[in-house]
Amino acid sequence: MFRLTVRDHIMIAHSFRGEVFGPAQRLHGATFVVDLELARRALDADGIVADIGLLSGLLKSVLAPLNYRNLDELEDFQGRNTTTEVLARAIAERVRARILEGALGEEARGAIAGVRVTLGESHVAWASYETGLEGG
Amino acid sequence: MFRLTVRDHIMIAHSFRGEVFGPAQRLHGATFVVDLELARRALDADGIVADIGLLSGLLKSVLAPLNYRNLDELEDFQGRNTTTEVLARAIAERVRARILEGALGEEARGAIAGVRVTLGESHVAWASYETGLEGG
Amino acid sequence: MFRLTVRDHIMIAHSFRGEVFGPAQRLHGATFVVDLELARRALDADGIVADIGLLSGLLKSVLAPLNYRNLDELEDFQGRNTTTEVLARAIAERVRARILEGALGEEARGAIAGVRVTLGESHVAWASYETGLEGG
Amino acid sequence: MFRLTVRDHIMIAHSFRGEVFGPAQRLHGATFVVDLELARRALDADGIVADIGLLSGLLKSVLAPLNYRNLDELEDFQGRNTTTEVLARAIAERVRARILEGALGEEARGAIAGVRVTLGESHVAWASYETGLEGG
Amino acid sequence: MFRLTVRDHIMIAHSFRGEVFGPAQRLHGATFVVDLELARRALDADGIVADIGLLSGLLKSVLAPLNYRNLDELEDFQGRNTTTEVLARAIAERVRARILEGALGEEARGAIAGVRVTLGESHVAWASYETGLEGG
Amino acid sequence: MFRLTVRDHIMIAHSFRGEVFGPAQRLHGATFVVDLELARRALDADGIVADIGLLSGLLKSVLAPLNYRNLDELEDFQGRNTTTEVLARAIAERVRARILEGALGEEARGAIAGVRVTLGESHVAWASYETGLEGG
Repeated sequence: MFRLTVRDHIMIAHSFRGEVFGPAQRLHGATFVVDLELARRALDADGIVADIGLLSGLLKSVLAPLNYRNLDELEDFQGRNTTTEVLARAIAERVRARILEGALGEEARGAIAGVRVTLGESHVAWASYETGLEGG
Repeated sequence: MFRLTVRDHIMIAHSFRGEVFGPAQRLHGATFVVDLELARRALDADGIVADIGLLSGLLKSVLAPLNYRNLDELEDFQGRNTTTEVLARAIAERVRARILEGALGEEARGAIAGVRVTLGESHVAWASYETGLEGG
Repeated sequence: MFRLTVRDHIMIAHSFRGEVFGPAQRLHGATFVVDLELARRALDADGIVADIGLLSGLLKSVLAPLNYRNLDELEDFQGRNTTTEVLARAIAERVRARILEGALGEEARGAIAGVRVTLGESHVAWASYETGLEGG
Repeated sequence: MFRLTVRDHIMIAHSFRGEVFGPAQRLHGATFVVDLELARRALDADGIVADIGLLSGLLKSVLAPLNYRNLDELEDFQGRNTTTEVLARAIAERVRARILEGALGEEARGAIAGVRVTLGESHVAWASYETGLEGG
Repeated sequence: MFRLTVRDHIMIAHSFRGEVFGPAQRLHGATFVVDLELARRALDADGIVADIGLLSGLLKSVLAPLNYRNLDELEDFQGRNTTTEVLARAIAERVRARILEGALGEEARGAIAGVRVTLGESHVAWASYETGLEGG
Repeated sequence: MFRLTVRDHIMIAHSFRGEVFGPAQRLHGATFVVDLELARRALDADGIVADIGLLSGLLKSVLAPLNYRNLDELEDFQGRNTTTEVLARAIAERVRARILEGALGEEARGAIAGVRVTLGESHVAWASYETGLEGG
């Protein structure tokens, strides 16, 4: 299996509901260093999983609606905690949808086997969500 | 699959038996940067794999009996080399046991699918051990 | 010159005033990885710049009033942008004041030559503030 | 499952064919930070996946024919793009072949379950190739 | 003193002349992770050393003529080894010249005290060049 | 000013005397990631601060008597705590002496302005010692 990863980041505000979160129930924020990993079994004709420039652009476009935002105010997350895990899944699902729409080309749509998104919230904690694609 | 990782470290002394270890047969030591990763298929009601504070505390309590110790003197490792791999397994098994005892709560006991512990011994070498849980 | 550094982090929300900040004028947030560095010309009788445990505790206590906060609501920063640079100085000045009050002991008060605080806001940007102490 | 990883690096020149590569069609170069990971289900009698010194030496010997080279001139890659993904596979396959030849010993030949090679091309992009071994 | 750093990277080919370079006399290449640090004694009216977006753009524009190039073919480096040190100075001098031309604004031109450029060539080696500005 | 840094590491055992050290009074150990930085005002005729291969070899030779050792047993450190700071100075002084003996060549002996050694003891703590050379 081949895997390709590109890195970007977002800076957001949010608050959590639930006693388990202690002081993180207050409005605070985070820098999330976002690693987007694609898996595929065989490389394309150019010898790549995907074009790094194209993939970085796709990631940036998926992150844009979240970046420099108070996530508490976004419709998509109403009534849900925007934990690192929840955000990793949301970003991975949006990337997955974009790939299935052809954002990385027709060939990649049928060949990408999986998507994994990892969000680093600090130097001592990170979370990821991994999902398959029809292509896999 | 969701994964959540927290990081801590220990500083220990030990020596190895076996010619393969060369100068590491002498009493020496290591800082192990310890990454504890939990896997679970679905998030809990709060939208998390586990509470990061709770998980960090669990890791610290598992590491405490090893930290600032000469592992050659510990009963648990008599007659065994405390290699990075052996320690990764020992720490993972203790975390696993603690989760099964309910250290992360009743819900997590049934939901955590796996535990992976990675020990970084330097900037150029690390080892990990991964095991499943009944919850998975 | 000797230097000793310890690392911690905070997670905060804030917004900026000024067109130069573009989308960062909106309420957003950041994880700041905080490195506190002390400089001194000669080590103490134990052979250290400062006790790492004591220094880490001092840093944590200085960071506590900022952690998990919306900095826009804090009195100390009213009317000022809490940029990475401004926060680095604020943290360094508080550490400096605590050292001068004796938080690291009487001997350290007279021996620490300088304090430098670096705040990493992402994997691609960080800022620091460095100041001298009477001890230097 | 146990995993052991060692790190080394190479510095190479190359160029790519294909419009997708844009400016990377020109002769340029890269430092690849190379992580070689072995997987095995049970440790050997010494309590290790493999000897770190032996494994580091194996990696260095596999990297030597590539290091400080213009990959465009190497016979092995004629007519192929030496992308990060292609190089990760080439290195992994060479390591795999060497293990099957007994480079890590007879016992390891039958016990290593898999090889994964990750090549970091920058702080924001990396790729890997993972393959099984008969031993697994 | 305040310092602000932004990170980018370039991927280049080159060769060295001189027996000291051994195999690096051959055409090879490197990824250089480039850290650009500015120093200034007092912050501007917005509370910053410089705008991170503006500074990142300045760095990218200075790196552009080097990126994805064989440095042996560039006029600017004819007859000179493009070592990590030489490149760090060349980049720092170009940034310095751009700041003096007003690339970061008129106020910054008079206030920036120094520029430091660090080039990481691998996980085990890096070099930097530091120079003052009239503003300092 | 130019600076060049190379990285290596050692794995040692030791114990400390003094109540301030708490549990670190017990025999324990550490991996120290060692960064050796040289400073010089002007590059040599080849365009370098020093040859990276030569410098890495010098560092390795200075580290060898410490590596895989119980520092409590070494004559050089009798009656002294081998803290991170003390070791940073010891390594820097040995490197300095070797440079003054000509280990990096006659030209470098007169040109190296300073030596700085940083020892990373974990992902959250490090210490350094910096000293000048006659060459500076």
